[in-house]
Amino acid sequence: MTIDYETKYAPNISERSKGRKLNSFYSFDAPKDLVAHPNPIHLAGGTPNEGFFPVESIHFNLIEEPFQHLDYSSKSALTNKFDINVKTQLHQLNETATSHTYRYTEDKDLEIDIAQAFQYGHTDGTPQLKNFTKKLVENTNKPAYNDWDIILTNGSGDSLHKIADLFIEKDSTILVEEFTFNVFNTGVTNLGGINIPVKINLKNVDNDPNFDAGIDTEYLADLLDNWGIDEAHYKGLKKPKALYTIPTGQNPTGLSQTLEKRKKIYEIAEKHDIIIVEDDPYGYIILPKYEKGAENPYAAKDFSIEKYKKEFLKPSYLTIDRSGRVIRLETFSKLFAPGLRLGFIVANKYLIGKIFLHQALTTRQPSGVSQLVFNNIVAQWGGVDGWIKWATKIAKHYTERRDVLLTALYETEAFKKGLFSVVEPDAGMFIIVYVNFEKQIPDATKWDAALIQLRLLSITHGVELVFGNKMATDLSLETTLKHSNFLRITVAAVARNEDFIIASERLNNVFIEFFDKLNNGGFDKLLK
Amino acid sequence: MTIDYETKYAPNISERSKGRKLNSFYSFDAPKDLVAHPNPIHLAGGTPNEGFFPVESIHFNLIEEPFQHLDYSSKSALTNKFDINVKTQLHQLNETATSHTYRYTEDKDLEIDIAQAFQYGHTDGTPQLKNFTKKLVENTNKPAYNDWDIILTNGSGDSLHKIADLFIEKDSTILVEEFTFNVFNTGVTNLGGINIPVKINLKNVDNDPNFDAGIDTEYLADLLDNWGIDEAHYKGLKKPKALYTIPTGQNPTGLSQTLEKRKKIYEIAEKHDIIIVEDDPYGYIILPKYEKGAENPYAAKDFSIEKYKKEFLKPSYLTIDRSGRVIRLETFSKLFAPGLRLGFIVANKYLIGKIFLHQALTTRQPSGVSQLVFNNIVAQWGGVDGWIKWATKIAKHYTERRDVLLTALYETEAFKKGLFSVVEPDAGMFIIVYVNFEKQIPDATKWDAALIQLRLLSITHGVELVFGNKMATDLSLETTLKHSNFLRITVAAVARNEDFIIASERLNNVFIEFFDKLNNGGFDKLLK
Repeated sequence: MTIDYETKYAPNISERSKGRKLNSFYSFDAPKDLVAHPNPIHLAGGTPNEGFFPVESIHFNLIEEPFQHLDYSSKSALTNKFDINVKTQLHQLNETATSHTYRYTEDKDLEIDIAQAFQYGHTDGTPQLKNFTKKLVENTNKPAYNDWDIILTNGSGDSLHKIADLFIEKDSTILVEEFTFNVFNTGVTNLGGINIPVKINLKNVDNDPNFDAGIDTEYLADLLDNWGIDEAHYKGLKKPKALYTIPTGQNPTGLSQTLEKRKKIYEIAEKHDIIIVEDDPYGYIILPKYEKGAENPYAAKDFSIEKYKKEFLKPSYLTIDRSGRVIRLETFSKLFAPGLRLGFIVANKYLIGKIFLHQALTTRQPSGVSQLVFNNIVAQWGGVDGWIKWATKIAKHYTERRDVLLTALYETEAFKKGLFSVVEPDAGMFIIVYVNFEKQIPDATKWDAALIQLRLLSITHGVELVFGNKMATDLSLETTLKHSNFLRITVAAVARNEDFIIASERLNNVFIEFFDKLNNGGFDKLLK
Repeated sequence: MTIDYETKYAPNISERSKGRKLNSFYSFDAPKDLVAHPNPIHLAGGTPNEGFFPVESIHFNLIEEPFQHLDYSSKSALTNKFDINVKTQLHQLNETATSHTYRYTEDKDLEIDIAQAFQYGHTDGTPQLKNFTKKLVENTNKPAYNDWDIILTNGSGDSLHKIADLFIEKDSTILVEEFTFNVFNTGVTNLGGINIPVKINLKNVDNDPNFDAGIDTEYLADLLDNWGIDEAHYKGLKKPKALYTIPTGQNPTGLSQTLEKRKKIYEIAEKHDIIIVEDDPYGYIILPKYEKGAENPYAAKDFSIEKYKKEFLKPSYLTIDRSGRVIRLETFSKLFAPGLRLGFIVANKYLIGKIFLHQALTTRQPSGVSQLVFNNIVAQWGGVDGWIKWATKIAKHYTERRDVLLTALYETEAFKKGLFSVVEPDAGMFIIVYVNFEKQIPDATKWDAALIQLRLLSITHGVELVFGNKMATDLSLETTLKHSNFLRITVAAVARNEDFIIASERLNNVFIEFFDKLNNGGFDKLLK
């Protein structure tokens, strides 16, 4: 059965997006029977010949394992500023760890050469990299329908703006998790839209393996079934036409939705004709269940790419998408490098077409140089499987980092005293830590003032944190407020595992000092 | 005297632009007396440590002269597809023609290392490259006021969208040249705005050195002095608050405004509080007066960078800008590589701040990898003077190409018969060629039909052209229509000078065949 996506989804998208029109001064519909010259000379577009490009060849020296450079150079403690002599940085690796790109390639199917990468390119990305992303999606999260499409973008930040633009005009509403990467929410607000928080389950401080993490499906079903009947159901507001969710390694919670939950949410979306925007920057960083002293499953003898794909990776909403109502966002920022500004969007052809028009009229295309760097290095690694192998190397390090940090946190005096609780993440780069001051401060409206005091202590003790209440969609909701007493910490940024030990000591000191003062009435004035 | 740019220019910009707000979940105003830890550990933002980036070092092999690769490899005729064996592409140049970038640099003031370029970066560009662009502007087009600012963007395509967004909301008007790079116009229309054409002088088919090329200042003054009084003065439309112009090597005409004209336009802008948007992608490609067989002035013995800056370059509107009303756009696309998607905007701090907010909420930053490639190679060339020297090498080739093409065109039978006329360009990459069919087709409303016939012939003869009437802002204006019978050809795209000879022969055949048919009544049915 073919779905007419335009008829089906045009009601979901903004008038702005629907109204966009391209107008090229080149375009011309030649009669079909016109016999064009086989070798036309191009005197038309203002594209400089590639002979003007000053770069003849580019050579990349690669590492085979994250942080490999630490093995061959001196390093300083606590900072990312290594004292490395330039001369020692160029290590000679074997041939599999170098990548060479020339002005012209002999393998145009796989490689992007300088003549192509440095030239004006395709709006939706070079064909080589588009092919790679299609194969990647087919290999990891094959959609349950056929005529899906892909567009490369300038990273997920850019994608999120384009997605917000796709749905939001003045007074539009969009469903978002009650705690989320609220940079997206800001984008919605700037377009005149309204973010509608959806209740999520997050406070798994007992680390129950059967905890039903993520969107509360009963809440969501009730919200949409009874939309507009009263204040709690947003009386007077337009009904939402899309849901923004981070289903795997959610930001900030680090928790993932089960497949069962995804199916329930998908059915609710079907019922109410909601488009599901699945933002998945961390989906390849699967963190197996924490067990003190256990072997890193990524380092196990029986670990394989096939096992990873089957048993580790969590299925995208695409895999259950029979109506083309899922928009999936991936990025190369977290696994390769954010500075590439390179990511992609998967969706049905109609929605991709609208994003294409937006892109053609604004950013034009992602950087060709970034595409060259990513594409050719990954081609050198062996394409999709090579990329997934690299992803598992990254995930192995994240797992190790997470384990080191959890172990250190669990050994602190503050933890043993119950001053804080940890929600163990199952994916991604974040861990949330609940500050257990509910007994001392039963009035949740005082928690922000208390967290500010904790923040001041964190600054003097030297540990940079994100505060959960700052990632709330709407802190005026009582349910959100009452779950907002947490910190978000990341295992992504520090240089070495040892830094987590020091960070844990500092965090311990922050908590001890905070609770001493709290228990001794030191914050009484502030919290009145 | 300090100008309050916000008070002065807020009335010129769109409500959308004025209303944008950033909202970061990191931001925190710590008390001033708080003593922060000197070495905080970063557990906050989701920035992967640079140890995760797979690239250890990057090595660029550069050419010292455009098209140098043609000297060391075989090439095929007529196309850009060279039959080069990969192994022969890596030529060994001397040390000044290679550039090396490592994970960490020892010269952070000038170089962007991998740890920085591959990481999330500054919204407005890396400090190193921002410094370079500031020095470049000071060195070539120093503004006549002090507190100007710069923002790096994803190339001028991206800049133009951000500029349109800055001014245009529903029913806004903006002044544009009657023939222009109307991709900008499309952006205006998509935002609900209206392009108001400004008459330009372009038909310098006698190549009079005193021709007053570009915007007709009397027309412009009258248009604004009498705005809204009648239909010809756009009765009922809002008065424009900005002018979009390409003052040097204008697209499509290839002509440049004199300094005297720029001063007149600036005074009109002062009087009517118009912001001048100066799009200058070709400004460094100055084409000296054509003279058959004359020496290329860029190859002359007494040619120097100083001479080029003083005698060749045309002054930007910035150099006469006393009120901060000029927005200048530069790009690295035409002189380095379009695939970088890298350019910059110069304007007063208030306007740059508004573009900054737009960028922070949408594209986030230009590609760090592109910034690395451009910045480090130009640093290797010696910074601003090295860059200008490279620009003169490009300009030398464009001059040579222009000369070869003009000489070949002037030798064609069609030219000698007066079938077409050439407007010799003084800058940039375009040449316009008038098709002299006014006698045969006095009714200009038939010209589009005639040009379509010419276009069909150009496709069969194998020469790709842009048709002037497709670059009109509003072809329904009689003055525009009556100047629309031209082709735009570029010297940028072909591989070798020899291609221009062949292209001229093909163009000759197109014109001969077209006029034979026209004169023999072959188009009578079509042109009725």
